[in-house]
Amino acid sequence: MKVLVLGGDGFCGWPTALHLSAQNDQVLIADNMSRRRIDRELQVESLTPIEQLPVRLDAWQTLTGQTIRFVELDVAMEYERLLALIHEAQPDAVVHFAEQRAAPYSMKSAAHKRYTVDNNLRATHNVLCAIVESSLDIHLVHLGTMGVYGYQTAGLRIPEGYLPVSIEIAPGQSVQREILFPSDPGSVYHMTKTQDQLFFYFYNKNDKVRVTDLHQGVVWGTQTKETQLDERLINRFDYDGDYGTVLNRFLMQAAVGYPLTVHGSGGQTRAFIHIRDTVRCIELAIHNPPRRGERVRIFNQATETHRVRDLAQLVARLTGATVQHVPNMRIEAEENELLIHNQGLRDLGLQPIRLSDGLLEEVHAISKRYAHRCDRSKIPCLSQWRAEHAATPTSRSATCT
Amino acid sequence: MKVLVLGGDGFCGWPTALHLSAQNDQVLIADNMSRRRIDRELQVESLTPIEQLPVRLDAWQTLTGQTIRFVELDVAMEYERLLALIHEAQPDAVVHFAEQRAAPYSMKSAAHKRYTVDNNLRATHNVLCAIVESSLDIHLVHLGTMGVYGYQTAGLRIPEGYLPVSIEIAPGQSVQREILFPSDPGSVYHMTKTQDQLFFYFYNKNDKVRVTDLHQGVVWGTQTKETQLDERLINRFDYDGDYGTVLNRFLMQAAVGYPLTVHGSGGQTRAFIHIRDTVRCIELAIHNPPRRGERVRIFNQATETHRVRDLAQLVARLTGATVQHVPNMRIEAEENELLIHNQGLRDLGLQPIRLSDGLLEEVHAISKRYAHRCDRSKIPCLSQWRAEHAATPTSRSATCT
Repeated sequence: MKVLVLGGDGFCGWPTALHLSAQNDQVLIADNMSRRRIDRELQVESLTPIEQLPVRLDAWQTLTGQTIRFVELDVAMEYERLLALIHEAQPDAVVHFAEQRAAPYSMKSAAHKRYTVDNNLRATHNVLCAIVESSLDIHLVHLGTMGVYGYQTAGLRIPEGYLPVSIEIAPGQSVQREILFPSDPGSVYHMTKTQDQLFFYFYNKNDKVRVTDLHQGVVWGTQTKETQLDERLINRFDYDGDYGTVLNRFLMQAAVGYPLTVHGSGGQTRAFIHIRDTVRCIELAIHNPPRRGERVRIFNQATETHRVRDLAQLVARLTGATVQHVPNMRIEAEENELLIHNQGLRDLGLQPIRLSDGLLEEVHAISKRYAHRCDRSKIPCLSQWRAEHAATPTSRSATCT
Repeated sequence: MKVLVLGGDGFCGWPTALHLSAQNDQVLIADNMSRRRIDRELQVESLTPIEQLPVRLDAWQTLTGQTIRFVELDVAMEYERLLALIHEAQPDAVVHFAEQRAAPYSMKSAAHKRYTVDNNLRATHNVLCAIVESSLDIHLVHLGTMGVYGYQTAGLRIPEGYLPVSIEIAPGQSVQREILFPSDPGSVYHMTKTQDQLFFYFYNKNDKVRVTDLHQGVVWGTQTKETQLDERLINRFDYDGDYGTVLNRFLMQAAVGYPLTVHGSGGQTRAFIHIRDTVRCIELAIHNPPRRGERVRIFNQATETHRVRDLAQLVARLTGATVQHVPNMRIEAEENELLIHNQGLRDLGLQPIRLSDGLLEEVHAISKRYAHRCDRSKIPCLSQWRAEHAATPTSRSATCT
């Protein structure tokens, strides 16, 4: 298959591009290099020594004989070039990772909120417009987030996108409907993903665009089978307060001898997936597209759930680190249950990697191995989330789960 | 009260600005003149001879002694100027009309889809960001649309924004929740209004921004008490295939001796409101703001519902015109019921003007009086809605309801 990967230089995009290429898909990457620009803005670096994209691609070709083409292109800002690229490349599928993906970053300031909204919504809409304008029957695979559902789910096992509800239309008379799960975003970033769902709903209904929306959990792990072939292919490991997800920050804190900082009680439950399962899920989604005319297909791309404080304990046990509780800036319950349905991708063949099986490798192969590259000043999160927090110095911290 | 009216030169914005000024509110208009630019793009003009905004404002001051200040500003593109204006003017309320509001226009081409999305979503998000960044407790009053609900409502009387549903969380065990009505937009324009709802939901939850979202029906009528004071204050009357709503097109067709064109069977039921009630509703919303911390307040700003073919018959009876059925390009049921709740604004004091009482005046005072200004070539709508319609010449027409 011919696959266009938008955002193919990023943390999920890069290993996905390699994985698809390894399956003999013909891969074309478009990326505006925004993730590397944001590294410079935040004065942070991946813990792992990632190479420039052309070096990565040369290494891949040398090692495997497979060519991945790359076009530097801003999906949100260069519509005509995107359309021309689609006309020229005639992809069977477009995988859309071209969004700003850090919740804390999206809350840093008005400028960061506006950048996240402008970039993410324009990018998604441009892709859909270009697919329609091209008249090609392209399958769009989008990386969504479990965060669209929110976490106030009242004991409900979160379904894969669609929720059956009963609506009373007259006293004693109800109708059953299956609706898009009512969304409850917790950050500007998550908000854009809930708005993306409405783009997909409309263009699927009006133009029959085939869409798979993958609501991904928090990704852990760094390397895939392909990225570990050679250090020039190594994937990003973010541990800073904006882009580092909870597990990476714990691993980094442990590696440099810091206590593991848990925001609030740590009773927040989150869904997780290993990066190797991410790339496998994308492959499964691409190779099992919805039929033309089928509604937007939604899968929960997460394999297990954990409380944040349990993760801290797990890392503490593996590493000998201590655990420290700090204030939580997010508007969220201190404790939540999280039950999820995730059979869809398993039915397509996914066999999940368990956290309990993979975490020790992550400790040794990544966080300890590259600990000398860590800039310790970058671990805390400084997004203030709400205006009223700005005044109090103790509150300049927010959970980066 | 101090009120900033965004989009205060438009069809709803202009009479709203005058009405609020007449109630002794201190009114400031910001507008980028985009509606007049689109007139030039489409080579159409308001049937009524509207004056340039400075002429309008001078006339208002001469007639009433009231000053309305005007700043030319693009809400979607000039965030820093918007923020500075809010800091300087310190409004109690911002009324947000600064969106592209024609469904057919939003479907004309990829460029029009992208313009509508970029303009509307950026405008709404910029206003919310600026309110939060200003730290002022400003009430945002937004003009939404009844079209967010869609028209497949299965006999349900559409509530004012929030729908009580029952969700089964285990066999035989259900929870009751009140959710944002599941949206079902029928055009890119309507889609942006469903996405606006998620902006409001998030900024209300995260930053306690006070928001009233008014889901307006199709507006009919042209003049308000204030705009009819002097011809220099006259309001727009759009009859073209993009911006002319169904009733205006019928009135125009009748005035120039054309048959009234009904798309499909005309069994589509829509909600309506007179422009005089629109301005009164905005006044009521501004003067009855939600409390800080209250969820987004949603009212259905529509006073009656009619089937399109019944409206055609009504205009035919008043004018002697004939009725002609033409194909419908929209993806919608040929026939739909539409029952709505609209008690919220009545409870605040709205006393609706009935179509049966006001339509004859509209025929004589506007459509017949200015019929000599009509460009008959502009009445049909040429938006093709979906790509597959482009090939067939008979289908180059869509309902502009």
